[in-house]
Amino acid sequence: MVGGGPGAFIGEVHRMAAELDGACELVAGAFSSDPGRSAERGRELGLDASRVYGSFAEMAAAEADLPAERRIQFVSIVTPNHLHFEPACVFLEAGFDVVCDKPLTTSIDDAYELCRLVGDRDAVFAVTHNYTGYPMVKEARSQIGSGRIGTVRKILVEYLQGWLSTALESTGQKQADWRTDPARAGVAGALGDIGSHAHNLVQYVTGLEVESICGDLTTFVEGRKLEDDASLLLRFTGGARGTLSASQVCVGEENGLSLRVYGTDGALSWRQEEPETLVFTPVDGPSEVLRRGHSYLSPAAAGASRLPPGHPEGFIEGFANVYRAVAGAIGARLEGRAPSAADMDYPTVFDGARGVHFLHRAVEAGRTDGWVAARYDGPTSTT
Amino acid sequence: MVGGGPGAFIGEVHRMAAELDGACELVAGAFSSDPGRSAERGRELGLDASRVYGSFAEMAAAEADLPAERRIQFVSIVTPNHLHFEPACVFLEAGFDVVCDKPLTTSIDDAYELCRLVGDRDAVFAVTHNYTGYPMVKEARSQIGSGRIGTVRKILVEYLQGWLSTALESTGQKQADWRTDPARAGVAGALGDIGSHAHNLVQYVTGLEVESICGDLTTFVEGRKLEDDASLLLRFTGGARGTLSASQVCVGEENGLSLRVYGTDGALSWRQEEPETLVFTPVDGPSEVLRRGHSYLSPAAAGASRLPPGHPEGFIEGFANVYRAVAGAIGARLEGRAPSAADMDYPTVFDGARGVHFLHRAVEAGRTDGWVAARYDGPTSTT
Amino acid sequence: MVGGGPGAFIGEVHRMAAELDGACELVAGAFSSDPGRSAERGRELGLDASRVYGSFAEMAAAEADLPAERRIQFVSIVTPNHLHFEPACVFLEAGFDVVCDKPLTTSIDDAYELCRLVGDRDAVFAVTHNYTGYPMVKEARSQIGSGRIGTVRKILVEYLQGWLSTALESTGQKQADWRTDPARAGVAGALGDIGSHAHNLVQYVTGLEVESICGDLTTFVEGRKLEDDASLLLRFTGGARGTLSASQVCVGEENGLSLRVYGTDGALSWRQEEPETLVFTPVDGPSEVLRRGHSYLSPAAAGASRLPPGHPEGFIEGFANVYRAVAGAIGARLEGRAPSAADMDYPTVFDGARGVHFLHRAVEAGRTDGWVAARYDGPTSTT
Amino acid sequence: MVGGGPGAFIGEVHRMAAELDGACELVAGAFSSDPGRSAERGRELGLDASRVYGSFAEMAAAEADLPAERRIQFVSIVTPNHLHFEPACVFLEAGFDVVCDKPLTTSIDDAYELCRLVGDRDAVFAVTHNYTGYPMVKEARSQIGSGRIGTVRKILVEYLQGWLSTALESTGQKQADWRTDPARAGVAGALGDIGSHAHNLVQYVTGLEVESICGDLTTFVEGRKLEDDASLLLRFTGGARGTLSASQVCVGEENGLSLRVYGTDGALSWRQEEPETLVFTPVDGPSEVLRRGHSYLSPAAAGASRLPPGHPEGFIEGFANVYRAVAGAIGARLEGRAPSAADMDYPTVFDGARGVHFLHRAVEAGRTDGWVAARYDGPTSTT
Repeated sequence: MVGGGPGAFIGEVHRMAAELDGACELVAGAFSSDPGRSAERGRELGLDASRVYGSFAEMAAAEADLPAERRIQFVSIVTPNHLHFEPACVFLEAGFDVVCDKPLTTSIDDAYELCRLVGDRDAVFAVTHNYTGYPMVKEARSQIGSGRIGTVRKILVEYLQGWLSTALESTGQKQADWRTDPARAGVAGALGDIGSHAHNLVQYVTGLEVESICGDLTTFVEGRKLEDDASLLLRFTGGARGTLSASQVCVGEENGLSLRVYGTDGALSWRQEEPETLVFTPVDGPSEVLRRGHSYLSPAAAGASRLPPGHPEGFIEGFANVYRAVAGAIGARLEGRAPSAADMDYPTVFDGARGVHFLHRAVEAGRTDGWVAARYDGPTSTT
Repeated sequence: MVGGGPGAFIGEVHRMAAELDGACELVAGAFSSDPGRSAERGRELGLDASRVYGSFAEMAAAEADLPAERRIQFVSIVTPNHLHFEPACVFLEAGFDVVCDKPLTTSIDDAYELCRLVGDRDAVFAVTHNYTGYPMVKEARSQIGSGRIGTVRKILVEYLQGWLSTALESTGQKQADWRTDPARAGVAGALGDIGSHAHNLVQYVTGLEVESICGDLTTFVEGRKLEDDASLLLRFTGGARGTLSASQVCVGEENGLSLRVYGTDGALSWRQEEPETLVFTPVDGPSEVLRRGHSYLSPAAAGASRLPPGHPEGFIEGFANVYRAVAGAIGARLEGRAPSAADMDYPTVFDGARGVHFLHRAVEAGRTDGWVAARYDGPTSTT
Repeated sequence: MVGGGPGAFIGEVHRMAAELDGACELVAGAFSSDPGRSAERGRELGLDASRVYGSFAEMAAAEADLPAERRIQFVSIVTPNHLHFEPACVFLEAGFDVVCDKPLTTSIDDAYELCRLVGDRDAVFAVTHNYTGYPMVKEARSQIGSGRIGTVRKILVEYLQGWLSTALESTGQKQADWRTDPARAGVAGALGDIGSHAHNLVQYVTGLEVESICGDLTTFVEGRKLEDDASLLLRFTGGARGTLSASQVCVGEENGLSLRVYGTDGALSWRQEEPETLVFTPVDGPSEVLRRGHSYLSPAAAGASRLPPGHPEGFIEGFANVYRAVAGAIGARLEGRAPSAADMDYPTVFDGARGVHFLHRAVEAGRTDGWVAARYDGPTSTT
Repeated sequence: MVGGGPGAFIGEVHRMAAELDGACELVAGAFSSDPGRSAERGRELGLDASRVYGSFAEMAAAEADLPAERRIQFVSIVTPNHLHFEPACVFLEAGFDVVCDKPLTTSIDDAYELCRLVGDRDAVFAVTHNYTGYPMVKEARSQIGSGRIGTVRKILVEYLQGWLSTALESTGQKQADWRTDPARAGVAGALGDIGSHAHNLVQYVTGLEVESICGDLTTFVEGRKLEDDASLLLRFTGGARGTLSASQVCVGEENGLSLRVYGTDGALSWRQEEPETLVFTPVDGPSEVLRRGHSYLSPAAAGASRLPPGHPEGFIEGFANVYRAVAGAIGARLEGRAPSAADMDYPTVFDGARGVHFLHRAVEAGRTDGWVAARYDGPTSTT
């Protein structure tokens, strides 16, 4: 693991998620650019001190020097946004697979460069747009894929939080500090931190591409340098329309990611805070409340579930599904077999690049107060 | 009553709402421009045949000729949009008070003209933006008025329906027929029919004025001449931002009007389909679930309630609150007393004019694909 | 109307409900045993003073003396429980139909006597177990009747309120005062006031008869003479089992009547506070959320609905459905036609008698701390 | 681990829960009484084959023979109910701490014997009544402990499932098979499997003791030997009353454990399927929706939480809190320090014994169709 030093929240999430199924184990890390703090975190985790490093470069080199059966299998990069690209390159070049936090990079060029590196090496590279790991999100994708709601017309996606409704960054709160700093967060605030998840969720579930964006980006908290609120109008290839709301100043909202998709024949609705439920409504009948764990779900949803219905699974399990797929994909390569559909069901470097591209277009739309062409033109898995 | 002939839905709503408190009684009407159908509806209602008229003009003249104690006290105009202005003028000029359906008129000029007529005569003129009649909407207004959520930053209002997701108008369905016909509905489809309610709700609850609008108006159902889906970005005086979604092609949505308002100190959330609940969340504590009928509510909310908590009130009661205020306002005038706050708590002709102005600006925003200045410049109650 | 004097809550509910559809009009009343208060209420209602009476006996006599086309069509008895029997007898004997509040009477003998009077005269006699007036309750009955959940196994019914969790009666609150007084309320407190509705709801929806009862009746508020909390175990004919909870000391509960019925093939769930929704779950598929006003509902549910889906109907409309059926039944008799299914869909005097019988058995079960046989042995519509 | 062989559900839950925080690691096991299957499961888990045993006795002996720093720290017993007692004794006698599934044993004597063994050795012995591990359950306990709802009057607890509504055991389904077999499950079916959790939840949250029980136990599925449905009336020390419903034939119910507690000053409500929310309602104000992860919660709730609000935690995290406390308690003993409140916050062997005692009394109540004295008379932590 790169990043995730003392006090970081997301590092511990990655560890719990990765280890949940017993297929991965955290064995090495460069947890902080401060070697003392890195070592401290290594001790907390009970790691072998020889595999706790003071920098990601040192770690990549040292691990690559270990015998194949002892070295790490892949690295998780859980640093602030501006520190994704470099370590990702270094580990890819050292021959490792990568799990990287989102947004993938702070510039479009960097994102495309990573795509090229991954493509050249046929590496496994996952970006933790973790919300697509939820079983009922996979069910939504299956239902739309099988045509159950007909042609998609309208998409309403929201990601609303309230934790930045005051100038939390000025209190020294670490999470708020880097997220509101353009040097570390990149071109976008709320859009980058959570809007990028909303965009990825729409892409994953509907398969539709954003064609153009119009948006209103606002900074409500005085002194903040990045937008903390954004409302976007979206036009999709094929004629669907949508709105995306991302805000971190919506007092009372915890982690309010929700998606509603309306088609010609039906509609789907899902809320991250109640992730085990997906509501499907046909054009002329009662709504159906689909719940995780039941035998009536699609294979993708069924395979992403660990517990019987009514035994709540949550954020960690959804996150763990990204790691489970990564482990499956790596395992398939090691065993020389074709990866299963489940092994390939993780957000790829290309999905990450799409996200970075989207963010930059959305920010431009905000800057110009008008519609901006936003069709993705970067590398894809098939190019 | 003008309009509300056989098969009309809203006429019966007006009757039930007006009569609910026993303060009003339907005694005369021109229910249809077809005298036979008007008479038929009169018989259904058990009215004196001599007071069932073949046209609104005939009705206004005849009723005005009756002795003061026998004539109607006010008229309800419940016709399609293009038939609001003329009867409203005629009845105002004949000296009657008016309750008129929304949107007030199909042109801004007509709306302003009505404002002038009303202002000149000091008539009572209510526009049935009925959703502000709900007690918990009044509570939301009270809470914001008293500063409980601080300065408003973000407003999310939606009005989503699904009943026009197919070409229902081509089946002869009466409600769909006129609402999708520009000659009768006016410049807007979904925006006029339901978006205008959403706009009015925001104005009523927050008191904020729309400053500019950017929007995306779409017609999804082939052959339809008016938009059936609209997404608007809104900027309000004072810096608040918002989105307004109005759609009639959202499969599965029934009458999905909802409002969320986020301020510096708290947030409020209300849904029309569960109208008895208002959720308030402070910036640093648990949400409070405020419920109709309790002693902890504001006088405005308390006074708009008829039953104890948990005995559901609904659409009719909210609608009846408009009529209750109208009856109160007329009563105050008759009795020569100052109207109470409750007597004045109905949507006025000026509110109606604001709505018409808003609709035209929103449609222009859709046409031009850019931001449009939208500050209301028409008559107000104080001009 | 008999009862419903100044300050009474339920009298106004009866008036609004009766008049909602325009088929009934309140024209006469003995609103209080105090002639002055009766007259005051008559004036409030704008009634002809000559038809506002000082006692129910006077009213029955005077109205019977009026010409048939001028006299009342039926009477609504909305007095405290101990004052149901006498006026009901008097009006029945004077040839009037009756709507009577619940529980029907304070003794089983009185209830059976009323059954006989009604049977002898073929009168229309409705008991306002109004909760069965809700459309989605009618839908639940239809679904069970059509076998959709198979054989009923388990019934969970609750009616929980919190308004009597303090000694409200000692503050002079009128509603609390008589309901906690055995001389006026009868043998039961919470069970009589609300438990009787719960029992009626179960009977109506499932058609099953209670066979035996075991119960725990408690008085939590000091000094109160009737139970304010009751938990019953129920065994039904055919082997179904159930529990009935009725309490008025459940702080925070407003009017928490709910019903869950589990069968061999499916289950149904309904909550009075969200009356427009009925949830059906099959044994092997997702739940369906059935909503009032849709075309997929049964005729009984469809016919009991006034507004489109999503325009909330509530308590008054459900209550009004009892009056609508009564008006239909009386109309059928007047017109010499057979009443329709809808005309007969109201709680009858026999249902009321069943309720009184149930209450007495439940109270006995509480007294003896054991199982009590509780099969109804009184008159029925077919005896 | 003892038990949890191939196909077992709860073994994997224990593993995920134990390992979640990185404080425990599964290193040895007797996963099945069939050595081949035990070995198979060991391989699946990647364990050292020398520590995968063919029987629990072998395992206890072999592990005890290992040097202290290499042997297991504690054992998890996850076998069917009839196989809890023996291995628990053996491991306790071999000097190990124990985590044991519930119900603790199939007889009261066995339960009391385990209490004595634990008391004699000062062992850490947890029974996985895991639902008390949820943060918001801990919050409920804190709120009641601090007097926020006043004196408890009424307790409604339910645990409803539907998965045994058909004769699933006759299809060879392993989970159904042993749970419906008296030889393996013990004296009770639904009561033992899930009613015991409901009872424990009530004890934990309210601190009240069951004084007497009246109950109705039913077997709905033909051929089944244990009750699959139970309704209990409960009387608690101090005068509170309650009902407990446990059923496995409630079609559509997934894992419907819920608790409502009503006091003189307020009420609390919690549902396991939405475990992050606790609703508190005061006697005279709006409900508060308390949510996991917020700073306004009690230390017990705060300490049991891993993620920020709105990032759903679920069943595994609640379960893991039992293991976290066990690890803390063992750690405290190893380090010679006094355990913290959190270290002691797990269901003990005494809680388990209470549960077994309760089950036997409830079954007796069902058998005798009357009230049964049920005050716990067994060993406690202070005896």
